[in-house]
Amino acid sequence: MLNSSVHRVVIIGGGFGGLQAAISLRRATVQVTLIDRRNYHLFQPLLYQVATGALSPANIAGPLRALLRKQANARVLLGEVADIDVPHRHVILHDGEIIPYDTLIVAAGATHSYFGHPEWESLAPGLKTLEDATAIRAKILSAFETAERLTEPDQIAAWMTFVIVGGGPTGLEMAGAVAELSRETLRHNFRAIDPAHARILLVEATNRLIPPFPPDLSAKAQSAIERLGIQVRTNTVLTNITPEEVVLQSDGKTEHIPTRTVLWCAGVQASPLAKMLAQATGAHLDRAGRVQVGPVLTLPGHSEIFVIGDMALCFSEQGQPLPGVAPVAMQQGQYVAQLVKARHEGKVVPPFSYKDYGTMATIGRMKAVCNLFGYHFAGAFAWFVWLFIHLIQIVEFQNRVLVLIQWASHYVTRNRSARLITGTRNATEAEDI
Amino acid sequence: MLNSSVHRVVIIGGGFGGLQAAISLRRATVQVTLIDRRNYHLFQPLLYQVATGALSPANIAGPLRALLRKQANARVLLGEVADIDVPHRHVILHDGEIIPYDTLIVAAGATHSYFGHPEWESLAPGLKTLEDATAIRAKILSAFETAERLTEPDQIAAWMTFVIVGGGPTGLEMAGAVAELSRETLRHNFRAIDPAHARILLVEATNRLIPPFPPDLSAKAQSAIERLGIQVRTNTVLTNITPEEVVLQSDGKTEHIPTRTVLWCAGVQASPLAKMLAQATGAHLDRAGRVQVGPVLTLPGHSEIFVIGDMALCFSEQGQPLPGVAPVAMQQGQYVAQLVKARHEGKVVPPFSYKDYGTMATIGRMKAVCNLFGYHFAGAFAWFVWLFIHLIQIVEFQNRVLVLIQWASHYVTRNRSARLITGTRNATEAEDI
Repeated sequence: MLNSSVHRVVIIGGGFGGLQAAISLRRATVQVTLIDRRNYHLFQPLLYQVATGALSPANIAGPLRALLRKQANARVLLGEVADIDVPHRHVILHDGEIIPYDTLIVAAGATHSYFGHPEWESLAPGLKTLEDATAIRAKILSAFETAERLTEPDQIAAWMTFVIVGGGPTGLEMAGAVAELSRETLRHNFRAIDPAHARILLVEATNRLIPPFPPDLSAKAQSAIERLGIQVRTNTVLTNITPEEVVLQSDGKTEHIPTRTVLWCAGVQASPLAKMLAQATGAHLDRAGRVQVGPVLTLPGHSEIFVIGDMALCFSEQGQPLPGVAPVAMQQGQYVAQLVKARHEGKVVPPFSYKDYGTMATIGRMKAVCNLFGYHFAGAFAWFVWLFIHLIQIVEFQNRVLVLIQWASHYVTRNRSARLITGTRNATEAEDI
Repeated sequence: MLNSSVHRVVIIGGGFGGLQAAISLRRATVQVTLIDRRNYHLFQPLLYQVATGALSPANIAGPLRALLRKQANARVLLGEVADIDVPHRHVILHDGEIIPYDTLIVAAGATHSYFGHPEWESLAPGLKTLEDATAIRAKILSAFETAERLTEPDQIAAWMTFVIVGGGPTGLEMAGAVAELSRETLRHNFRAIDPAHARILLVEATNRLIPPFPPDLSAKAQSAIERLGIQVRTNTVLTNITPEEVVLQSDGKTEHIPTRTVLWCAGVQASPLAKMLAQATGAHLDRAGRVQVGPVLTLPGHSEIFVIGDMALCFSEQGQPLPGVAPVAMQQGQYVAQLVKARHEGKVVPPFSYKDYGTMATIGRMKAVCNLFGYHFAGAFAWFVWLFIHLIQIVEFQNRVLVLIQWASHYVTRNRSARLITGTRNATEAEDI
């Protein structure tokens, strides 16, 4: 099935960019090898719904092998990349296996950044993987379980305080979901505490929520989220996290907030492969660890290496860096596939240009903000648009139906069926953390 | 909501027995405290479907708090029992909390037994918890992933050999599901190996499969499972498990079978609380660690302590020990609740008697064996009966709908959407195990 004389395209990463590149190469006379540490493609925009018990991991993940089952020119390789040997054109896996390439597409994504405070990672988990999501789910639910068993009011209050760091779309969605979980889903579930009294803080360093959106939508998002009883702290910097509290600074004032649950929705950092590639090729690396690519998404002096998605620093026609969102990665994946085919046929394609259809963020049940095709709108209609666009993008048909039914049931009954505390950590241990 | 002068019923364990007891006490003037290590009730009979990627954990688990939400006389306590102080009538949790009781219902279930070989546990995981199921799912899928990357035929064969120990209903269901996964679901998913060539062995020490069933159904189950390409080894004893192989003994002959995936569906061992209670009350303990209960399911000299479900050794009217299955536990839970209410009203109830409607086991897509109301039947009709009975028993309505849709989709497309390798262990590490 694999022919060694055929042009070998190796793709690192089965996220939005890498998977799209592989799929867009389905009719090309190339041999595609997609390498990923995971055996599935993850629909990251809905991870927060797993973290808050509304969806199951399998609802937002599709096995890569199943997705590429019928694509005879593609194979999937489950493995972790240790190194890229740029001069010899091969990828080296952790177990020593060597994968030679003629064209390399690097789409390894990003992870959390704690802005020079790696010690915060264990105290304020971020949301990038399914394991993150189920761990955060266990952490949130265990906090209520612990509060139910305590008697000291200060301790109960600390366990029922949830601090979400970062007022971007992820932070907004997370805060909205935690609010609904506590205000609605858990109603009548406890006997000693009332989960509706949970205090939820959303901390943002800049002067408004969801900074990538226009200011009028930021204002709408803020008033919507405040109606859910969430305390929004803009212009506020988090200066410390301990197991007992967070320290916030605003207008020169310092505030200590006792809490046991801090969720990190702030910075991201590109995969370390970006640095590796920058060193090997002399490409520029930005503060977020992204490697700068040229107009056709290649590295300087290496037209055979493409970097796409959250790892790539790529500018819009207006000279702005493109955001780390799925549409950018998917358009880049599609573009690179097109370019590889064009090269084969001796054709030339114009530089990559991102078609920005807009952005969306959801706040909770029937509430969202949308900035699409230049139109700003919020509320229930925005939410239905959000729902529709996310649903049609979920990769497998079965998942689409299941997600729709779970959402329908969730929005009618306000129940969240995936409220499981799983993993090795159990409730009694939670108190020691 | 909790009144200290009211009769306090403490239930340990939110499985079939404990949950049923709590629910059946909903109209009693007692105060119910249900203690569990987990925040959910687990529908164990379908765990093997999670282990083979057909269902998600949340499909077969319902949060205990949600299930008892509207029952004002019941509270749920997430915690692990460390000790039971029989003379002082209180339960002691791991964190030192003391829970006094007037009536105690112990329904803590069972775990795996490796028949004196605890070192086999890490090599041959059993299937009792959601974590077991997702770990087994990762183990099975990783075995195919590893085989895909190997070149040595002997090694490939060892990674593609699956040994299921124990030919009871669980072993039968597991073997059938692994066969369907490899023969159907993973078809066209790999490029170097053909998962359909996986070798699946089902090892049973007695002379026939599913010994609790009548011999004609055992024979039907065996021929059905052999049609799926599974090698059945009855009268065969497993004498050793190493990371490289299993050793089988049959008719005095020893066979070494190289394998990397051994799944344990053999013995069970009652919760250690059974031994604790036996020591405190002088009750008899059997080889499986179950504590013998009297005609009304109490311990000798302690009419306030009931033991039910997999932990209890209880005899049928014919003098046979009752099997560790959900219907026994549920009927016992219901009976104990009835007895507690009757005592309150000064009434007398007859001893517990198990109404045996029969047993069922499924073999795979559209195949099952049933022994219901004295009728023996197998095949597609048996499978629909199995489907119906399991579906109506799944505790929450949403789960019922979701499970039905996932099954329908699975049986039409033969796809299994929950084929995720999750957890801390990743594919590259799998080779070291």
